[in-house]
Amino acid sequence: MNVSQADPATLAQQQNASKPEFPLDMWYVAALSKELTDKPIGRTLLNQSVVLFRTPDGQVAALENRCCHRDLPLSYGTVEESGIRCGYHGLLFDGEGKCLEVPGQDKVPRKAFVSAYSVKEQDSLVWIWFGSEENSKPSCEPPRYEVHTDERYVFDGGVFYYEAPYQLIHDNLLDLSHLGYVHLRTIGGNAKVHMGAEMKVEGEGDSVRVVRHMRNSTPPPTYTMAYPFEDKVDRWQEIEFHPSHLRIWTGAVNANTESLDSPDRGGFHMRGFHAITPETAESSHYFWTVASNPATNKDEINKIVTEQSEMTFEEDKVVIEAQYQNMKRFADRPMVDIHVDVGPNRARRIIKRMCAGDSHAAQ
Amino acid sequence: MNVSQADPATLAQQQNASKPEFPLDMWYVAALSKELTDKPIGRTLLNQSVVLFRTPDGQVAALENRCCHRDLPLSYGTVEESGIRCGYHGLLFDGEGKCLEVPGQDKVPRKAFVSAYSVKEQDSLVWIWFGSEENSKPSCEPPRYEVHTDERYVFDGGVFYYEAPYQLIHDNLLDLSHLGYVHLRTIGGNAKVHMGAEMKVEGEGDSVRVVRHMRNSTPPPTYTMAYPFEDKVDRWQEIEFHPSHLRIWTGAVNANTESLDSPDRGGFHMRGFHAITPETAESSHYFWTVASNPATNKDEINKIVTEQSEMTFEEDKVVIEAQYQNMKRFADRPMVDIHVDVGPNRARRIIKRMCAGDSHAAQ
Amino acid sequence: MNVSQADPATLAQQQNASKPEFPLDMWYVAALSKELTDKPIGRTLLNQSVVLFRTPDGQVAALENRCCHRDLPLSYGTVEESGIRCGYHGLLFDGEGKCLEVPGQDKVPRKAFVSAYSVKEQDSLVWIWFGSEENSKPSCEPPRYEVHTDERYVFDGGVFYYEAPYQLIHDNLLDLSHLGYVHLRTIGGNAKVHMGAEMKVEGEGDSVRVVRHMRNSTPPPTYTMAYPFEDKVDRWQEIEFHPSHLRIWTGAVNANTESLDSPDRGGFHMRGFHAITPETAESSHYFWTVASNPATNKDEINKIVTEQSEMTFEEDKVVIEAQYQNMKRFADRPMVDIHVDVGPNRARRIIKRMCAGDSHAAQ
Repeated sequence: MNVSQADPATLAQQQNASKPEFPLDMWYVAALSKELTDKPIGRTLLNQSVVLFRTPDGQVAALENRCCHRDLPLSYGTVEESGIRCGYHGLLFDGEGKCLEVPGQDKVPRKAFVSAYSVKEQDSLVWIWFGSEENSKPSCEPPRYEVHTDERYVFDGGVFYYEAPYQLIHDNLLDLSHLGYVHLRTIGGNAKVHMGAEMKVEGEGDSVRVVRHMRNSTPPPTYTMAYPFEDKVDRWQEIEFHPSHLRIWTGAVNANTESLDSPDRGGFHMRGFHAITPETAESSHYFWTVASNPATNKDEINKIVTEQSEMTFEEDKVVIEAQYQNMKRFADRPMVDIHVDVGPNRARRIIKRMCAGDSHAAQ
Repeated sequence: MNVSQADPATLAQQQNASKPEFPLDMWYVAALSKELTDKPIGRTLLNQSVVLFRTPDGQVAALENRCCHRDLPLSYGTVEESGIRCGYHGLLFDGEGKCLEVPGQDKVPRKAFVSAYSVKEQDSLVWIWFGSEENSKPSCEPPRYEVHTDERYVFDGGVFYYEAPYQLIHDNLLDLSHLGYVHLRTIGGNAKVHMGAEMKVEGEGDSVRVVRHMRNSTPPPTYTMAYPFEDKVDRWQEIEFHPSHLRIWTGAVNANTESLDSPDRGGFHMRGFHAITPETAESSHYFWTVASNPATNKDEINKIVTEQSEMTFEEDKVVIEAQYQNMKRFADRPMVDIHVDVGPNRARRIIKRMCAGDSHAAQ
Repeated sequence: MNVSQADPATLAQQQNASKPEFPLDMWYVAALSKELTDKPIGRTLLNQSVVLFRTPDGQVAALENRCCHRDLPLSYGTVEESGIRCGYHGLLFDGEGKCLEVPGQDKVPRKAFVSAYSVKEQDSLVWIWFGSEENSKPSCEPPRYEVHTDERYVFDGGVFYYEAPYQLIHDNLLDLSHLGYVHLRTIGGNAKVHMGAEMKVEGEGDSVRVVRHMRNSTPPPTYTMAYPFEDKVDRWQEIEFHPSHLRIWTGAVNANTESLDSPDRGGFHMRGFHAITPETAESSHYFWTVASNPATNKDEINKIVTEQSEMTFEEDKVVIEAQYQNMKRFADRPMVDIHVDVGPNRARRIIKRMCAGDSHAAQ
């Protein structure tokens, strides 16, 4: 890496001193379970440079990504039975950050240790807790995501890196009216249909829910491929915002056959999990999965759905990064709100309140 | 784009507050006509981030490159009959910056508009006016460039991007003595011939004229290819500086047959148009064309002349960008003037005077 | 080069004003002799932008890398019999920085000259002296390196560029215990053997000597290929630190046959020369050679030894650059010393003393 380029973690460490730019007292997604193999992962999360690893017995750990001897990132080391070994002089640390061994000397210096973070793996996700000074230990459990253990669904996912603040990605997901303009070539379809959909925005506690129904419409190609629809369909889009992630449940039933409001509705479902974890105030990790319930050819349709989702997110990334660059360019200029901003603005107020410390741990 | 890299328009916007680094009350070239097809162009000019586009009826427009809703550059949008549509949520703006439509709502908010710039297309060039606060509207017409409509000539051109201030490119063009050193491999020829040429520097108003005659010399290969010279030739180089562009008229006649001073002289002509428009104080757009009057094989020779010009400018770009990097490295060191600097220094005084506001609109 | 990226020499020039970050009153390696062919080399050394060149008669010269006319780096120019000619307008400078010619005018302006640096080529190395204000001229000769002229040895080498401060490379070379962790895939071998070796650290004046003996061990593949060892060997590693370079003499004799302490010991030898010359406070040039005394197939084994050394240094570069990035990221965190740091820490104290001005010229 070129030293003359700004380093996200360095810049962030400096800014971090002042005030929290993100809610701290909550669980964030640090990785998808499938990412943690036998190699450590170095990743900056909420301005903290972290090494994530899984020991051969399957346990996941997160330490500060720095050997206390001469600062080499521990992510350049190797994972062993009892922990992670530094790739420079071989110091060995366990999952709590305790130094177990300094090669070539009998005694481990008293000051030889690194910080550890609370992590918990569940539902194929690895969650991490940073916490404010008063809440360095988790005050609750990470949220469950039952879709990943529901046998009716197949799913897959990935990780995107965005050069943009996390809240711009919240905005994007909470307002699917952009489908007709950004995703012309993929899932977009007819812009007017999306813009004209019935929309309802609700909030409860630290969550926001945006529901859109598109009745009596033509099912998109992916839908007809995955499910034997008879003709027209009634479609729904349900977006549920939580400070650590969004859940987007879209789907369709044969037109005029079922209530779209029932959680037990049939038809074809696509359920997206979207966890945006800030790297810094200006960059984000985007962990996502999409689960679906194809009537047949489960594996094949799962693969197609995953590929299409990835292409779609790639389109969003281009737009959101360009948007952020331009926001900095025109930093002093006011933005004009329109009707689709109701959901996004409500989510921003929740984050703002949490950063100000007016909230209990939320996910 | 990587957020940790400096962004020209952002940096520029900040500096812009203080004092003009460029003359503002004049027309600049914003694009070659041929660049404006059915896609919008995003371009920073004089520190302003601009989107240029041509509607299907042929009209050219220039707006600030930012949707007033959520800041996406309008250059990511699409051009329609009535204007440009944002690529995020579909707001539509006409060529004056007025918002015509906000998809999904009936009323367009009163504050929904973007700034527009004065543009005029003529002679295959697109001109733009920024203007000082007192002169936000053009106080004159853009200059004509009749060569582009003269049937005796064929021409083509292109655009270069320089990581260097525009005045370093003026210097380079006003002093063709560098041909023998920078352009050894292309149009250079014998360094001593160039250095030994008769030179005359004249000035009038906001223009500078450098004339060099090289009598009784061997015509370069391009010349003999394009024109049936008998033997030795008398060559001329006429460089005409205007604050917005330079015109370089070079050519040759059979030795001792005609006066080199007559504008009606015969022989072979190459006429260069060179408009250097600052992107920022540290970077420039270089719009150029070269027109020639081959006796035969017009298209073929036009192609060769254009390719050779492009190669030559590529050589200049390498030298000028290296020069500028080194100027910053040795910022506190004085430069020593030599005889070839008379023309360039005169042009610099004109620009300085114009920045100080002592000039009427010039081109 | 992109103007918006930080330029090492520019940043350095600014910092340079305050206090020396490196000992100034000593010779540094500026190049390997073999680097200086008929093309000039531009290189920043100790924050100074320098052009190095060799005139056709073989003389080596070093000037500030800037034409005094319009600042083009002289390294963009061409070398002639009497000096170097600028690649923009053709000014010609001799090896003392005197301007001999300004093309197109008879008189050379009095102020037309550039600074020259003291250089000396010996033992296949080009040395340069910068000097403090009080010692702008060398107060001693550069150190000899007789290995390069010793007929028992064959050698070759190269230059690496590190995005890391020079002292991190000193640390690395003075502590070969990292071999077992960083160089697993090349010369590493068994980590425990390296860590368990007998070690002795000595100091004298401005030098540090670290000696490690590994008795009765299995010779590595390179050793058995180069020399007819009978079975087990006694190996030595001798590291000699001088402020301008390190000498690393490693080798082996048949086990229990000779004293490892005698400079006349037989067996197979590999002698490394490692000169780390700061480019800036944050980056370094690393000039190296490795000499060996193969019993047979000298050329072939010289080639293999050189290639293996290069691969090894590549591994060090990755680790040291990552270490430096992380040091900046965790700038406020203390490092914990372990037993292997004795040699490196002693060398750091010498450099610190020299920067404070408490030392006579050292190499």
